[in-house]
Amino acid sequence: MAQIRIALAQVNPTVGDIAGNSDIAFSAAQDAAAAGAQLLALPEMLIPGYPIEDLALRASFSKACMTATEELAERLQDAGLGELAVVVGTLESSENTNTPLGTPRNEPRNAAWVLQHGAVQAKYAKHHLPNYGVFDEYRYFIPGQESCTIEVAGAKVALAICEDLWQSGGPVAEARNSNADLLLVINGSPFELAKNDERLDLCARRAAEADCLLAYVNLVGGQDELVFDGDSMVVSPAGVALARAESFTPALLVADLDTDQNTASVAESGTGSATTAPDLAHPTAAIYQALTIGLRDYVTKNGFQSVVLGLSGGIDSALVAAIARDAIGGENVLGISMPSKYSSRHSREDAQDLAARLGLAFRTVAIEPMLTAFHEVMDLSGLAEENLQARVRGVTLMALSNAEGHLVLATGNNTEIAVGYSTIYGDAVGGFAPIKDVSKTQVWALARWRNAQAAANGEVEPIPDSSITKPPSAELRPGQVDTDSLPEYDLLDRVLDAYVAQDQDADALVAQGFDAKLVQRIIAMTDRAEYKRRQYPPGTKISLKAFGRDRRLPITNQWRLDV
Amino acid sequence: MAQIRIALAQVNPTVGDIAGNSDIAFSAAQDAAAAGAQLLALPEMLIPGYPIEDLALRASFSKACMTATEELAERLQDAGLGELAVVVGTLESSENTNTPLGTPRNEPRNAAWVLQHGAVQAKYAKHHLPNYGVFDEYRYFIPGQESCTIEVAGAKVALAICEDLWQSGGPVAEARNSNADLLLVINGSPFELAKNDERLDLCARRAAEADCLLAYVNLVGGQDELVFDGDSMVVSPAGVALARAESFTPALLVADLDTDQNTASVAESGTGSATTAPDLAHPTAAIYQALTIGLRDYVTKNGFQSVVLGLSGGIDSALVAAIARDAIGGENVLGISMPSKYSSRHSREDAQDLAARLGLAFRTVAIEPMLTAFHEVMDLSGLAEENLQARVRGVTLMALSNAEGHLVLATGNNTEIAVGYSTIYGDAVGGFAPIKDVSKTQVWALARWRNAQAAANGEVEPIPDSSITKPPSAELRPGQVDTDSLPEYDLLDRVLDAYVAQDQDADALVAQGFDAKLVQRIIAMTDRAEYKRRQYPPGTKISLKAFGRDRRLPITNQWRLDV
Repeated sequence: MAQIRIALAQVNPTVGDIAGNSDIAFSAAQDAAAAGAQLLALPEMLIPGYPIEDLALRASFSKACMTATEELAERLQDAGLGELAVVVGTLESSENTNTPLGTPRNEPRNAAWVLQHGAVQAKYAKHHLPNYGVFDEYRYFIPGQESCTIEVAGAKVALAICEDLWQSGGPVAEARNSNADLLLVINGSPFELAKNDERLDLCARRAAEADCLLAYVNLVGGQDELVFDGDSMVVSPAGVALARAESFTPALLVADLDTDQNTASVAESGTGSATTAPDLAHPTAAIYQALTIGLRDYVTKNGFQSVVLGLSGGIDSALVAAIARDAIGGENVLGISMPSKYSSRHSREDAQDLAARLGLAFRTVAIEPMLTAFHEVMDLSGLAEENLQARVRGVTLMALSNAEGHLVLATGNNTEIAVGYSTIYGDAVGGFAPIKDVSKTQVWALARWRNAQAAANGEVEPIPDSSITKPPSAELRPGQVDTDSLPEYDLLDRVLDAYVAQDQDADALVAQGFDAKLVQRIIAMTDRAEYKRRQYPPGTKISLKAFGRDRRLPITNQWRLDV
Repeated sequence: MAQIRIALAQVNPTVGDIAGNSDIAFSAAQDAAAAGAQLLALPEMLIPGYPIEDLALRASFSKACMTATEELAERLQDAGLGELAVVVGTLESSENTNTPLGTPRNEPRNAAWVLQHGAVQAKYAKHHLPNYGVFDEYRYFIPGQESCTIEVAGAKVALAICEDLWQSGGPVAEARNSNADLLLVINGSPFELAKNDERLDLCARRAAEADCLLAYVNLVGGQDELVFDGDSMVVSPAGVALARAESFTPALLVADLDTDQNTASVAESGTGSATTAPDLAHPTAAIYQALTIGLRDYVTKNGFQSVVLGLSGGIDSALVAAIARDAIGGENVLGISMPSKYSSRHSREDAQDLAARLGLAFRTVAIEPMLTAFHEVMDLSGLAEENLQARVRGVTLMALSNAEGHLVLATGNNTEIAVGYSTIYGDAVGGFAPIKDVSKTQVWALARWRNAQAAANGEVEPIPDSSITKPPSAELRPGQVDTDSLPEYDLLDRVLDAYVAQDQDADALVAQGFDAKLVQRIIAMTDRAEYKRRQYPPGTKISLKAFGRDRRLPITNQWRLDV
């Protein structure tokens, strides 16, 4: 008979801040002990932060992580928390001198260490290393070979780390073979659209395979292009989520498990926990939260106080401004209107209206004098003239950034970035691009959703209705609208989703009924814009396949499939 | 007794140009047959080009490569070349339906196909997949499991692909076990400093292990950031290079092998071949060639006719101009002088002198009117004012690019890019950055070497002496010199080489005698500049660890090692 109270700490570390991350672990242990928990689980790679990329290869870094984790065990003991069993993700490494050429090699592992009674009681290394999508873990880690089962309060607890759960066999099968009472999985699993559902399905399947309760704890917060969404939970072998933390926010999910009955109930002593999945059935709500957290953590973890962005009156900059206000407060968001002679009166008014609705700092900078100066020196027309306007605006924003210390936000959406409908060094300037992975169709949906939320809460709708309803235009020449150069966004986004996110070929698209010429035109535009994407700022990944680390293509590339 | 004439075709494909690359293979086969060869070896992944990154994952692409390779076999037969055994690198894939969840999976392999008598006679898949440095082959390929030995003209030929040679055991051991007469290795091995020597040592060691002659054929030419340097050769089991092609240029190395005596001699019928290593003992010469080819192939393979760059009168832009002239001809290089009030007279004169020496197209664009316009609208001083000058120049170059179709070259060197001593969207604008992996110390050495070459050939020295000898300055404020902000370049480059290329830690640097404060300052500058590097244009890799794919670090990263 095993009854055990466990705590799953859904926390937000910072890459490289080993001392700060250890403090997060210590603080969670205090809360867990106060809540009467016997076992605390902290996420994958909490001590170094995650993902650390080539930092994994530096011996000094893994050494610092190991030392900090050992010191954490001692500190817990010293604070009277030695009884609590703490499972924490850390980086470990050893020097292998048995190499083919005899040159010693530093071999890092993605590890879970078990701390109790002031010491490291057990160590487990991740078996299955993800090496697809945004992950390159074969580059960084040596795979673990041995399973690890610990005993806490009479319960047999088998350990696994993240990708171990996504692969059948290995640690999951070992948990069953060793008759474990609980399969404890620590994770660093980033948000992407529809992953919440997938994750619960997966936990249910693996709990059944392991034939025991499964506890899943995940990071929260943003790290460069990734946002970790938490979604920590306890799942029964019958596939039922018995306890589940709120997504996108730090939480300590405390649950009482009966490992004979395979039941669990949320203990009241936990914070921010709930037995049911969060209200994120609406995918738009989840995307909005991910974008807000991704921006907030990029700003704060990189030491910025404020952001600046150009407000054109259009929907993209309006949405980014709303996200920025929700992330760091309107007083820390500076909106700049930079009208040219092609900017319509309603655009200027919409920009001003937006800033007022959001409570932003707002200024107008006239760009005509700079444009005139360029035109007097060089003879520019057509595309060169259009791009010049965008670039003078870019220089203006960067000058304000240099003078006043704001982080510049680029406001381009994923559809534009896919087809290259943006000006490199113009509207593309910025330290962060909050909606770079958000299609134009999703931009409208997010704007409408955010306004509806405000209306439901009796608040001012943040985004002017006319920014949502008017035909999109870059306003770089008289009467210009986006559809002069691009297909209708609805159609364009469906083709792009199939080509980029689903990785379908041109002939598959044509087979689905898309016009062959249209498909070829969109694919050619997308392929040709690769060079611009290489220089685009980072921004939060929300899709199945974001540009960049998730989708790697050469710039020099003459492959075109005729259809 | 086996005597066999082989041809090693050192050729330059383009990624994605399957038809063009097949033509290159066909043409090499014609030449090889005309030279009396019985066996032709073409490099790794010749048909798709290399490296193809995520194109490897597209089933349509691997299908097109396989079809093209089969058609090549037929075309050779139809042209009366069916007797020639042709080993060619290609991409193959198959659909695996035996997956855990039953979802069919496309499984690509990095393959060598043997073509003869109009058909594919044998297939080999690369066993060892490099997954370090710039390589991510675990992401792309399923490793081969089976060895492959073919018989040509009575000789037993064992096949291997590139990384197979860098690992002991596997195909090398198999060659010995099967008593092969020749180990034939097809490669896609990029240039980096000192790799030539390493490559010969490696071939010598593996030939001894395989206990037979070893033939090595490599790609030449540029692909985005990589330059393949050829260096194809035949090596005896005693470790002697018996035949060796000239580096950095297409060649057909034809050699007569006696596999009983383990001897080989170059046949006169080959083109561009030599029995000795090329005259690249001088590493500066090799770097200059790599940079020239890297730029030339980026320009031509991406369909550009001409380039534009800013000429400041300084050494960096002078070197880039000389490389560009050597790559595509002075008439296709447009140099722009964009003096501000801080530009010295000698800088303006040096820029003009350089353009004259190189025979460049040359123009002067005054930027003061644009600067004045910005200053009238915004109040800028200090760093904001300095950056504004660089950015107005960047906008000017991009406007000329848009108006006239030139590729913009960024002229930043590796030292600047390491410590962030450059203006994002200013001097950092460009489609390609020829010297981004070249340290300031190497920039001077390259300039001196290029001038000495010209002098030795009785030509005009391309780079004005004063550009080489004057103290480096960005000339963005009165009397500014680089050492106002940076340590002396000699010292700075030694610290950067240890920290970046050698991946040494701060404490290791201090242990070597570098000042602790200096080390910490340089490391902090380097770490903080990561966000700028993410948006820097691509440029030719020459060092052991180039920024970018070769060295991957998070932007959000609070790791600092105190020393």
